[in-house]
Amino acid sequence: MEYRIEKDTMGEVKVPADKYWGAQTQRSRENFAIGDNQMPLEVIRAFAVLKKAAALTNAELGVLPEEKAQYIAKVCDEISNGDLDDQFPLVVWQTGSGTQSNMNVNEVVANRAHVLKGGKLNDNDKFIHPNDDVNKSQSSNDTFPTAMHIAAYKMVERHTLPKIQQLRNTLQQKANAFKDVVKIGRTHFMDATPLTLGQEFSGYVAQLDFAIKAIKNTLDHMSYLALGGTAVGTGLNTPAGYAEKVAQKIAALTNLPFQTAPNKFEALAAHDAMVETSGALKQLAVSLMKIGNDIRMLSSGPRCGIGEIIIPANEPGSSIMPGKVNPTQCEALTMVCAQVMGNDVAVSIGGATGQFELNVFKPMMIFNLLHSARILGDACDSFDRNCAVGIEPNHQMIKENLENSLMLVTALNTHIGYENAAKIAKKAYNENSTLREAAIALGLLTSEQFDEWVVPQNMIGSIKK
Amino acid sequence: MEYRIEKDTMGEVKVPADKYWGAQTQRSRENFAIGDNQMPLEVIRAFAVLKKAAALTNAELGVLPEEKAQYIAKVCDEISNGDLDDQFPLVVWQTGSGTQSNMNVNEVVANRAHVLKGGKLNDNDKFIHPNDDVNKSQSSNDTFPTAMHIAAYKMVERHTLPKIQQLRNTLQQKANAFKDVVKIGRTHFMDATPLTLGQEFSGYVAQLDFAIKAIKNTLDHMSYLALGGTAVGTGLNTPAGYAEKVAQKIAALTNLPFQTAPNKFEALAAHDAMVETSGALKQLAVSLMKIGNDIRMLSSGPRCGIGEIIIPANEPGSSIMPGKVNPTQCEALTMVCAQVMGNDVAVSIGGATGQFELNVFKPMMIFNLLHSARILGDACDSFDRNCAVGIEPNHQMIKENLENSLMLVTALNTHIGYENAAKIAKKAYNENSTLREAAIALGLLTSEQFDEWVVPQNMIGSIKK
Amino acid sequence: MEYRIEKDTMGEVKVPADKYWGAQTQRSRENFAIGDNQMPLEVIRAFAVLKKAAALTNAELGVLPEEKAQYIAKVCDEISNGDLDDQFPLVVWQTGSGTQSNMNVNEVVANRAHVLKGGKLNDNDKFIHPNDDVNKSQSSNDTFPTAMHIAAYKMVERHTLPKIQQLRNTLQQKANAFKDVVKIGRTHFMDATPLTLGQEFSGYVAQLDFAIKAIKNTLDHMSYLALGGTAVGTGLNTPAGYAEKVAQKIAALTNLPFQTAPNKFEALAAHDAMVETSGALKQLAVSLMKIGNDIRMLSSGPRCGIGEIIIPANEPGSSIMPGKVNPTQCEALTMVCAQVMGNDVAVSIGGATGQFELNVFKPMMIFNLLHSARILGDACDSFDRNCAVGIEPNHQMIKENLENSLMLVTALNTHIGYENAAKIAKKAYNENSTLREAAIALGLLTSEQFDEWVVPQNMIGSIKK
Amino acid sequence: MEYRIEKDTMGEVKVPADKYWGAQTQRSRENFAIGDNQMPLEVIRAFAVLKKAAALTNAELGVLPEEKAQYIAKVCDEISNGDLDDQFPLVVWQTGSGTQSNMNVNEVVANRAHVLKGGKLNDNDKFIHPNDDVNKSQSSNDTFPTAMHIAAYKMVERHTLPKIQQLRNTLQQKANAFKDVVKIGRTHFMDATPLTLGQEFSGYVAQLDFAIKAIKNTLDHMSYLALGGTAVGTGLNTPAGYAEKVAQKIAALTNLPFQTAPNKFEALAAHDAMVETSGALKQLAVSLMKIGNDIRMLSSGPRCGIGEIIIPANEPGSSIMPGKVNPTQCEALTMVCAQVMGNDVAVSIGGATGQFELNVFKPMMIFNLLHSARILGDACDSFDRNCAVGIEPNHQMIKENLENSLMLVTALNTHIGYENAAKIAKKAYNENSTLREAAIALGLLTSEQFDEWVVPQNMIGSIKK
Repeated sequence: MEYRIEKDTMGEVKVPADKYWGAQTQRSRENFAIGDNQMPLEVIRAFAVLKKAAALTNAELGVLPEEKAQYIAKVCDEISNGDLDDQFPLVVWQTGSGTQSNMNVNEVVANRAHVLKGGKLNDNDKFIHPNDDVNKSQSSNDTFPTAMHIAAYKMVERHTLPKIQQLRNTLQQKANAFKDVVKIGRTHFMDATPLTLGQEFSGYVAQLDFAIKAIKNTLDHMSYLALGGTAVGTGLNTPAGYAEKVAQKIAALTNLPFQTAPNKFEALAAHDAMVETSGALKQLAVSLMKIGNDIRMLSSGPRCGIGEIIIPANEPGSSIMPGKVNPTQCEALTMVCAQVMGNDVAVSIGGATGQFELNVFKPMMIFNLLHSARILGDACDSFDRNCAVGIEPNHQMIKENLENSLMLVTALNTHIGYENAAKIAKKAYNENSTLREAAIALGLLTSEQFDEWVVPQNMIGSIKK
Repeated sequence: MEYRIEKDTMGEVKVPADKYWGAQTQRSRENFAIGDNQMPLEVIRAFAVLKKAAALTNAELGVLPEEKAQYIAKVCDEISNGDLDDQFPLVVWQTGSGTQSNMNVNEVVANRAHVLKGGKLNDNDKFIHPNDDVNKSQSSNDTFPTAMHIAAYKMVERHTLPKIQQLRNTLQQKANAFKDVVKIGRTHFMDATPLTLGQEFSGYVAQLDFAIKAIKNTLDHMSYLALGGTAVGTGLNTPAGYAEKVAQKIAALTNLPFQTAPNKFEALAAHDAMVETSGALKQLAVSLMKIGNDIRMLSSGPRCGIGEIIIPANEPGSSIMPGKVNPTQCEALTMVCAQVMGNDVAVSIGGATGQFELNVFKPMMIFNLLHSARILGDACDSFDRNCAVGIEPNHQMIKENLENSLMLVTALNTHIGYENAAKIAKKAYNENSTLREAAIALGLLTSEQFDEWVVPQNMIGSIKK
Repeated sequence: MEYRIEKDTMGEVKVPADKYWGAQTQRSRENFAIGDNQMPLEVIRAFAVLKKAAALTNAELGVLPEEKAQYIAKVCDEISNGDLDDQFPLVVWQTGSGTQSNMNVNEVVANRAHVLKGGKLNDNDKFIHPNDDVNKSQSSNDTFPTAMHIAAYKMVERHTLPKIQQLRNTLQQKANAFKDVVKIGRTHFMDATPLTLGQEFSGYVAQLDFAIKAIKNTLDHMSYLALGGTAVGTGLNTPAGYAEKVAQKIAALTNLPFQTAPNKFEALAAHDAMVETSGALKQLAVSLMKIGNDIRMLSSGPRCGIGEIIIPANEPGSSIMPGKVNPTQCEALTMVCAQVMGNDVAVSIGGATGQFELNVFKPMMIFNLLHSARILGDACDSFDRNCAVGIEPNHQMIKENLENSLMLVTALNTHIGYENAAKIAKKAYNENSTLREAAIALGLLTSEQFDEWVVPQNMIGSIKK
Repeated sequence: MEYRIEKDTMGEVKVPADKYWGAQTQRSRENFAIGDNQMPLEVIRAFAVLKKAAALTNAELGVLPEEKAQYIAKVCDEISNGDLDDQFPLVVWQTGSGTQSNMNVNEVVANRAHVLKGGKLNDNDKFIHPNDDVNKSQSSNDTFPTAMHIAAYKMVERHTLPKIQQLRNTLQQKANAFKDVVKIGRTHFMDATPLTLGQEFSGYVAQLDFAIKAIKNTLDHMSYLALGGTAVGTGLNTPAGYAEKVAQKIAALTNLPFQTAPNKFEALAAHDAMVETSGALKQLAVSLMKIGNDIRMLSSGPRCGIGEIIIPANEPGSSIMPGKVNPTQCEALTMVCAQVMGNDVAVSIGGATGQFELNVFKPMMIFNLLHSARILGDACDSFDRNCAVGIEPNHQMIKENLENSLMLVTALNTHIGYENAAKIAKKAYNENSTLREAAIALGLLTSEQFDEWVVPQNMIGSIKK
């Protein structure tokens, strides 16, 4: 491989000749050979937005020449378009401030701009300086959290929330479609009084509605940007008005309601906004774990399980057992949920461990948050398209279960009292008979009364007077 | 000990003669000898509220005689007043629906009402039946979650939030009081550019403000009550209008904005409201962990630490080292935070593990949520009164640190460029000299320029033009 | 209440006249009004053992008069006997070193010894000094971790492990008893090839055997005692040979294999032994969660669930649904498991957050570890006695499920090939017929071949040649 | 892109013409578009080992023609060599049994073998069948857990443990090198009695030794292989002796002590071995978090921190603050630790959620375990090479701190009593004087006595008599 020599305040370093990055990126590659978790491209793209916004703001405020700003903006657009994706080789496990990824962006923007202007990568003097120009009015300490907020907000707003909503809508359609399918209820995993399959699914819809609301509640915190705080939150070396203007530009570029953080010290030293959103995603994971488990169990069988719904068969289920179709979408979904619950712990520990003016668990925190938001959205979509839309009631099994159930006896509580009803249920259970047979044998009511009082369809809502 | 015989649908059981509880409570005591975590009294008191509300509503709707309702209400008031605290012996580790605690309340209310009316505990026939009267229009499956929501909402609204606010206000006072105390900043735990001690504390205030907002955001979900759903959410065996009326009564009795849950299936089968509030409390724990750690480190010393603030000495710090005063309030606070982070995982796992129409991790979930809310509130109060209010700057140490710092060199970036500034800092560091000496020795500026440009007081906000 | 005046290095404080504790205990009560989690009595009792061992060792090594040592030992025996349980009022949420509980013990021992010798609590001069005598050759920093290890080792060895073993033995008996009960297997919660109920239970036994082994593996680390390290691990102010001798005495007093820690710095600054044992208890919780869930689901029904086993009915299951018996022991057990998984996170965060020569999350860590070990042991015992011992197969349901199953078709794979077998299963499934009918209709085998090849009893072990 | 048609029991599917995978792999790609977490190559390579071992064993036991076995083995060697890495496109978020990755391997092996033998990918009849031949005597349900154990054992034994040992050895060298460097101790982050820097580092060594031992303790469980259990653990469709032989072959191929699991039901239905090893890795993370934090704080400054050690400067620390060198290796290390603590929660939740004969969180569990083991090993290596080896004492700062410290007063406890010593410390503290000055001013000892008694070097071990 061919190299060129780059240098920084510590000295010289060899960089692949055809790459735009510089000395500090290269040092990070060499000093942090840890795992293969790349800094998420969403963070890099967010950097492109903020670097462009900063350059334009700097130009407006007279601290950066207009031409430089335009070149910086141009490269940022290239990054946003994905044209330079192979220029950001750093991993998550680097400095906890994300400084090296900030420098990676600064170096790539500076060198690429120099080339765009007609220069060469190995020119001694460059048109644009990564620190003095690209990082103008900025510090890693305020750019990285700004990129975290932009990347997270976008992912949650544009990917996770729509996918949850899509799954929620499918479940709502099912709740409507199944509104007259009366089935046995189950509490303690034991037979209970009946409800409709539609009511059961309406509970899932309610869970997702609450999860969506909880996630949205966190976005206000996420909308606050650290940019303008520079190194410790004071805004040292920024021109007056910079913080507000640059936030407005970012809002305009992203079409998202970003605003400058009212307190920059919190914005650098704590990442409670990450903790807050991660917590809401964890709540969603908890909801989806319940839903995925229910669907898995409701579809169990085909002959020896609950079997009250039928889910689509997307693939052969087993390499040894022919004819078996497994709830694989439930499995992928619930695995994702377990992952998200673990990720939330990592995010929380990172959030709790900031010190003084800086939290240095930044890359780990955004890595986990984006991971959770990404796979939750994808899993909702996959579960929706490959499972939920195709769910159908197994009417025969539902009917058999309902008619077999002893718990219909509850309908008699208000007629013959709790203890008499209990006697009937016990007798039927012990003698493996029907409730009707037991009730009549005990002389507690007549066959006609039984038919009048024990009507599953009448047991699925409150008493109408 | 003297006993009387009580019976339920399963047969007879011996109960301490002087206790109001009945057969099912007694069975639970015998069948669940697990640990010593009592069902929280907050849950029992919440039951008193809901049983009273249910009885009055039942009477209004004509399904319970007025006299019975009044007796039930009377006993509920006794429970609320704490007069019957020794009548609720059950532990958290019982049935996951909390049925046994529901029955404990039903039995105590029925028997106590019977006695209030002039009966005796060992009468064969009782004025009030625990199931048919006290539990009228209810099931464990909707009462226990209702009690969970009432207990949690009250604790968070009346205890946790006010205590956070109290600590937040103290920290705000400190932020104001310290607004002119310029000190060295620290990022990566390394010396950084200056800020004021007030700015540092303002970051803590911002964290708590966000935490308060996040917690409040969750209370809407917590305000929804399951009552009226009965066994599986359908409201079987409840009179029309019951759910709305009983929620209004509970709201009136507690003076809190409770409302009937729009979807009762979610309210029984999932406890995402618990997960949501626990998640917000966990966020608070994360914030307080940061704050507690910072205060601990800022006050470290007395001679060999950071030592920039002085915290109150509340007790002798060490049994072997005289004269040492430890940040014990920080330690209690941060231990509480670790506990809350663990509790949140327990709550989340419980929330994820519901099945079909019922989540059976209810007692564990409310136990942990109340535990977190209680100790967070208490710890905020203790930390506030015994530490935060007494925090004072150690002006001498702050001044020494500030003057020693090499990072003031950053002020020169805009005057002589990043790389020249770096040279000065390195020279001073290597030669253990001052920045001024190094700057002049390098010929990069004059002594007068140094004095004009390197002014810590000018480094604590953005450039004013 | 009557008070006496006690004093410490900080001044005077009012103490209840009839209590043995002194100034520092009283200060802690006033300064740490946080929650109601008492310092576990197991820790106090462990302190009694170590204070006695230290006193006797100090006497042997000539640094404490024999008479004083004897009086200290006498009070320690009283504490061990539980005679002074009401003298230890402090909560967990105190100083993170546990200093205040160490001083609580020192003060109670000194004052009680003084009284035993004939003095009065309000004498100015006391026979025994809490620091100079009772705490001789000790520091909170080495006594508290020593008490942690003693308390944890005893709890795990004498309570948790025997209870797991007891449950394991019951499950082994069931595995033996059920060894010929052939039943349908389930993978992906779907019908799979058969196994015996005994084999299913043997898996639970294997899980518990592995859990027991994992827990035992951690006890070696737990056997190392910090005592002799004093304040920072150097053993300052201890006589030569003290650390080894005092560990031997503790081993003799407890009849457990305690030994002096080879590295006292680790023993004070880290509590990885707590993390290690908590991790193994968490593994047990994971195992028990699986087992409890399986039992719950296997016993589900009575008419509309899996229903292959029958569990004991210990209490009426529902306040509204007569005749229903719930898997309440499974619920208590799995709630305990969720708690333990949460506790482990708290312990881990505490363990990760030590600084320099001292970890100051000690009380929180031992509180959680003891909590986990206690409720796991209790829950194993409760689940064993009230559920596991009474488990019986539901032969009728098992037979029905087995005969219904389509998965017996797997037995044909080696005879007619995977794809042909799949055809049969699909045909039977689609036409709701039996495998036999489908096989013959497809002309893939004869009725006699079906009877010869499809024998569930032959499908529960590897091919015998 | 060109395609060919593949088919399975469900019908036809289009597969990229140049890929070896077949219908089931392709279906998984289409049905599980979730995230970008590839099934770890370590799992694929482990499959290559077990497929080869199974084929050879099948041939030996006469159930597979020798020629087929040899072709299968040949392809497995190619996979092991990394020649077919681009043939395994599936993600972690697939079916929870890992069936699709098992089929991916089966299909690639079968098709590649067919090509090696001279056939073409679109031949209708193939020399080797993915199910009947490559998966012979196997099921996804026993192969995937076998691959999990092989991959995890190898990673931990060959990567993680050696890297911890390497870091441990460096720290031991430092402990030796610094054994005479007396410095101030810190407890509660407050000045405490002295110890040597070597003693401080010896605590880190002890932590890592315990972590290594804890991890090794788990490998016995990991050495048990599920292979031979087939679909539900009974070993259906395997020849006699197969399980033992195939485990021996795997042991021989890997040179690791694998053995057949004594209970196959546990081996399929639970993955407590994953939970156990993950728990030990989490303990290591806890240890490393402490160590990383200590190093970070010890090296803090350069002028306003603790500053007692000097760590290597590997890169410019800040994009705005010249001359600043940050503890970036500590940051990467502690971020990794937080991640591992989160991963452990995910693994535990997955482990707790198995049902009946199969745990269906397999891919998620091994993904997290391998992730933890990989980044812990890498981070130990990176931290060792880029930080630990270069740590040097800052003798000047150590000396200043030591001489300033008030805590040397503890040396006087045994000479003048605890309370007198406390008076000296307090006076020195209040008057900002030295201990010597305060002691003499109080008339409690002479200057000569002070010099004789207060000797830091005498305070770093127990009293030698």
